[in-house]
Parts: sequence; structure tokens; C-alpha cells
Amino acid sequence: MQIEHPYLMFLGDAADQLAAKTAQGIVHWRRDWCVGQLRLENCHADLGLPDMTIDAAAAAGVRTLVIGVANRGGVIGESWMSTILAAIEAGMDVASGLHARIADIPEIAAAAAANGAQLFDVRHPTRTFDVGTGARRPGKRMLAVGTDCSVGKMYTALAVDAEMRERGVDCDFRATGQTGIFIAGSGVSVDAVVSDFISGATEWLAPANAADHWDLVEGQGSLFHPSYAGVTMGLVHGAQPDALVLCHEPTRTHMRGLPHQALPDIGACIDGHLAAARLTNPDALCVGIAVNTSGMKGGGARADLLRQLSDQFGIPALDPVRDGVAPIVDRLMQL
Amino acid sequence: MQIEHPYLMFLGDAADQLAAKTAQGIVHWRRDWCVGQLRLENCHADLGLPDMTIDAAAAAGVRTLVIGVANRGGVIGESWMSTILAAIEAGMDVASGLHARIADIPEIAAAAAANGAQLFDVRHPTRTFDVGTGARRPGKRMLAVGTDCSVGKMYTALAVDAEMRERGVDCDFRATGQTGIFIAGSGVSVDAVVSDFISGATEWLAPANAADHWDLVEGQGSLFHPSYAGVTMGLVHGAQPDALVLCHEPTRTHMRGLPHQALPDIGACIDGHLAAARLTNPDALCVGIAVNTSGMKGGGARADLLRQLSDQFGIPALDPVRDGVAPIVDRLMQL
Repeated sequence: MQIEHPYLMFLGDAADQLAAKTAQGIVHWRRDWCVGQLRLENCHADLGLPDMTIDAAAAAGVRTLVIGVANRGGVIGESWMSTILAAIEAGMDVASGLHARIADIPEIAAAAAANGAQLFDVRHPTRTFDVGTGARRPGKRMLAVGTDCSVGKMYTALAVDAEMRERGVDCDFRATGQTGIFIAGSGVSVDAVVSDFISGATEWLAPANAADHWDLVEGQGSLFHPSYAGVTMGLVHGAQPDALVLCHEPTRTHMRGLPHQALPDIGACIDGHLAAARLTNPDALCVGIAVNTSGMKGGGARADLLRQLSDQFGIPALDPVRDGVAPIVDRLMQL
Repeated sequence: MQIEHPYLMFLGDAADQLAAKTAQGIVHWRRDWCVGQLRLENCHADLGLPDMTIDAAAAAGVRTLVIGVANRGGVIGESWMSTILAAIEAGMDVASGLHARIADIPEIAAAAAANGAQLFDVRHPTRTFDVGTGARRPGKRMLAVGTDCSVGKMYTALAVDAEMRERGVDCDFRATGQTGIFIAGSGVSVDAVVSDFISGATEWLAPANAADHWDLVEGQGSLFHPSYAGVTMGLVHGAQPDALVLCHEPTRTHMRGLPHQALPDIGACIDGHLAAARLTNPDALCVGIAVNTSGMKGGGARADLLRQLSDQFGIPALDPVRDGVAPIVDRLMQL
């Protein structure tokens, strides 16, 4: 599976900018791939891209219509259908991040078959995987882990990927969730894999490689999130990481979606993820803390927190958005 | 889903006794439910039950034909088909532990529809689950965990269930794998659940209950098994156990199926599972060690090992097959 670019970003009738979060992430990281956006009436999101019709996009060489938007009510309305079908008829593939599979919609499936178009439902793995083995494999791997869900694991892995590329390091970003898959053009939504195969799917995603090649693996969930820790555990074991980066959002008052669940202590969280990682890579180290400080008030408090974390754990602590990730990449290059 | 008994145990053309391992487990724990066995030509397994035809079984009141046998080559041959179809036509349901779904075989599906028979593919969850929350719920729960796969977790949970029933304790065995599901008549194969829902499926399986009710939850895998630890992690969090029993097989030289993977230290294994359990139940304790000593030579060595483990960890260490589990149940009753 390889989603081909350039992309036309379909925003449908997005209720607000947040509904287009996935699309925004794609544009942020792969601006070159995104030729334009297509918005229907009553669309309240804007990616800042040129508005384009299907015909104009086809003429501009677009290969894939990307549905990177949350839809209302979970069903694809008629207004979406006509755009999707027109894209297929214009020779595009369609890639969707919706929960419901577009490939399950008979009209779309029929149009795709008739036009030789590929349909990508990136939330749903389309292949099966072997059971993981944990056998050591060559190549270096970094995994972003977190104190919680949605604390910047994808951003951090992508920032490390970008910094490494600038330095000429041979590396790949390995996507484990829908937005990441659109950004990489491939990947596996590990939370949708049958649970026996989580580590196996991750071993497939980040396979044996040259000794100095880095895979930068997007993390999912947290070992301390009662809803999703199983996914995280299999991902940690399968990634066999040489290095972990712990991602953290300091203004959270409880685990995401669970008001009764306290956040883990940062030290315990590092130790817990390292202990898990060392089952398949005894040399695993935590090389940095990536803190999303966007919710903090005042530069002083922000700097104090980062300094305190760095002092406490003896590793770089930084906000990847404000500060970049160079100090973390410096550490990785020393491994 | 509730598989109705009595059962007729179908052994097909089992290559050897090991191929009928699931059926043997069912007969061991639910001898009363198993009216007879049906063996085809070239069957090399024997459950010690009366051999019965479909007609005789139907006359004896059998409700379900149980396919508790590994088949050759993974496909259901003609010789099996005719028996399965005859059972359906005689008014029985069919429950299968095969990897391939019998419900996917058109002739079987058609016969079941025509006769109002239910088809149970116990390895495959037939419902969806909510995401787990980890919210505290009433009722008491014990979970069997292990240093490895196949070290007696199901046996231990069933032995505790039997001992509690003898003492008049209100309890349920909660099955998480195929053999256990046949034995309980219901359950969830958690390793076949989509990974986002492992803890949620377990919360559903062992729901809120009376304060003095015990759920005895069958474990799966090990947090220290690189292939399956994700399943184990979600199961531990979803079970929200008050008590863990660690199961162990002392003659293993490596993790099952993985010659490169060392067994965990027992103390580290207890600590690791307890740390995970305490995320959703801060009061979780390890109340015993269940050791499968069948591979050990000599009663002296066996007694020495159990005494050493009991002294080291301050909890009962016993072989549930040889010794029963009364000391563990004594501990549970004190919680």
C-alpha cells in the first residue's frame, strides 16, 4: 500500500477547523504534496490551500483525493458521494481516514473497480501480519511514547525525521495512525490490528535495515492509559527501540477521556516504558522529553519546567514546536 | 452468546491425542456436559467417552456438536462436512474452535439458517466492544497471569472456581480463550479482539457485580512474551484484578515458541504484572504462585522449589494439579 501524491484535500462540510485536524496535519508536514482543497457548501474549515474543483485538480496532476476530515454523524452524505465519485472518474485514487470504510460503499467500490482506482481506508489494515517474535534485527529505531494520548508523539517523530533528513541521516518515519499514514503515504493503524498481532505488525512496519538507518516510529497511547495500553505495549515490543522519547502535555489534569484517571508520574512513566522496551532491546534508553507547552502561560514557567525536567532526568527536555528537536537528534546520533 | 450443553464431542480424523487437546480440556472440567464422542475413520484420539452417532446423540438430548480438535491442513474436508451438516439437520447447534470460521462455509451457513441452528466460532468475537475506561467497578476479580504462555492459567482459574463453588462462594469463571469458552459456555477470545478494545472487551466480560462475588478470569500470554504482551496488558487493565495468581512452568528453557527469548525472573514477573494491575486497581495483590511441576523429576526437587518460592515471596506456592488450590482460595477469602 502506497498512497500516491499529489493530494487534493477534501474537507466536505466540516463543522469547524477541528474537524479538519487530520487534513491540517498533512498540510503542515507535507505542504508540497497538497495541491489544493475542495470544500462543499457550509464548510467551516480552511487549510489555506487554493480551492479546486475535481477537474482542476485532475488537470494539475492530483493522484489522490484525501478525506482527512471527521464527518457529521458518521455517514457519508450525498454531497460527499458525488465529489468522491467524480474524483474516481477523473482518475484519482481515494484515501479516507473515516471510521466507516469507503470501500464498503457499493457505489464507490463499483466506481473504483470500473476506473482502476485504489481505495485506501487508512484506519483499517488491509493485510494480515505474522505474530511478532522479538528477535533482534539490525537498524536503529526510535519510538515516541507518552504520558497520555494526544501529547505530540506523531509530531515529535516527524520533527526528528525532518531534523535527521537535514543532517543527511538515512531514516524513515513509520506511521502507526491515520494522520501519520497520510503523511508517510503508508503505514499501519496498529490500534485496528487484531490484538494477537500488534507486535508483529510493528515488526513488519519497521523491519530490519542498514545498521546506521533510523526508523522513527510514531507512538500510540500510553502504557498508563487504561483504554489503550495493550496497543502501546505491543508497539513498544515490536518497535524494539534503541531510543525512546517521552512526550508530555503538562496542563492535563487527568488521562484523556477519563476524568477518574490520574496522569502518571513522569519518572514512573519513563521507567515503565523503558522496562517494556528492554524486553526486546536490552540497550533501550530514553533520550529526551518532548513537552507540548502550548497550554502553559508565560515563558518563565515554560523554561522552568523544561530546565527542571532536564536536570531531573539528565536528558534534553524541550518543546519540539518552539525549540525544535536538535538536542534529541544529537543524542540519537551518539547511540 | 451461550453455547448450550449437553455436548457431543467431534474428534474428526484427529492425527493424535494432542490434536484433541481442547476437547480433552472440556471433558476434564465439564464431564457432565459431554455425552459422547464422534470419531471418524483414522481418528487417533480418544476422550474415553461413549462413541455416538449423530442420531444417537440427538436422541440423548445433545444440544451442541463441539469441534474441539485441530484439523489437518486447516481445511474442513468432506468427511467432516457430512457430520456437521447431519448434526445441524438433527437440531443441534455447532460450536467450533477452528481458526477458519464454520459460519463462512456456505453449505454450513445455509443448513444452519434452514434449521434455526446457531453457529459458534469461539475464536472469533461476534460482537463489538466499547473502549475500556478503567473506572472502578464493584465485585472482586482474580486474574491468572504467567511467566509464559501455556503454563496453566486456565487450569488455575478453573481450579479456583471449583474450590470456591465447593465452599459456596458466589463466583464465575470468565473465559478468554477457546477451550475456556467451551468450558464456560461463553466468553471472549481476547486475542482476536481489535487491539483498541482489549481492555474494553475484558470489562464487558467481567462486569460490575455484587461486592462479595468473585470473577475468576482466565489469563492469556505474559507481559514478558514479546508476541502477545499487548493482549496481556489490556487483559490486566480490563480485569481490574484484586488478586493475581502467577502461573509458572519451571522446566522451560525459553519463552514458548521463541528460542532466543529468556524466561523472566519470577520476582520481576510478579512485580511487572502487579504494576500493570495497579493502574486500574491500586489494591491489587499477588496471592499465590501456581507451578506446573509435571515436567520435574522427583518429589524432593518439586517440594524444594515450592517451599523456596513460598518463602521468597511470602505467598502460597503449589501445583494446582497435585495439591489443589485451597491455600490460594484461603488468601482470596481474606481480601
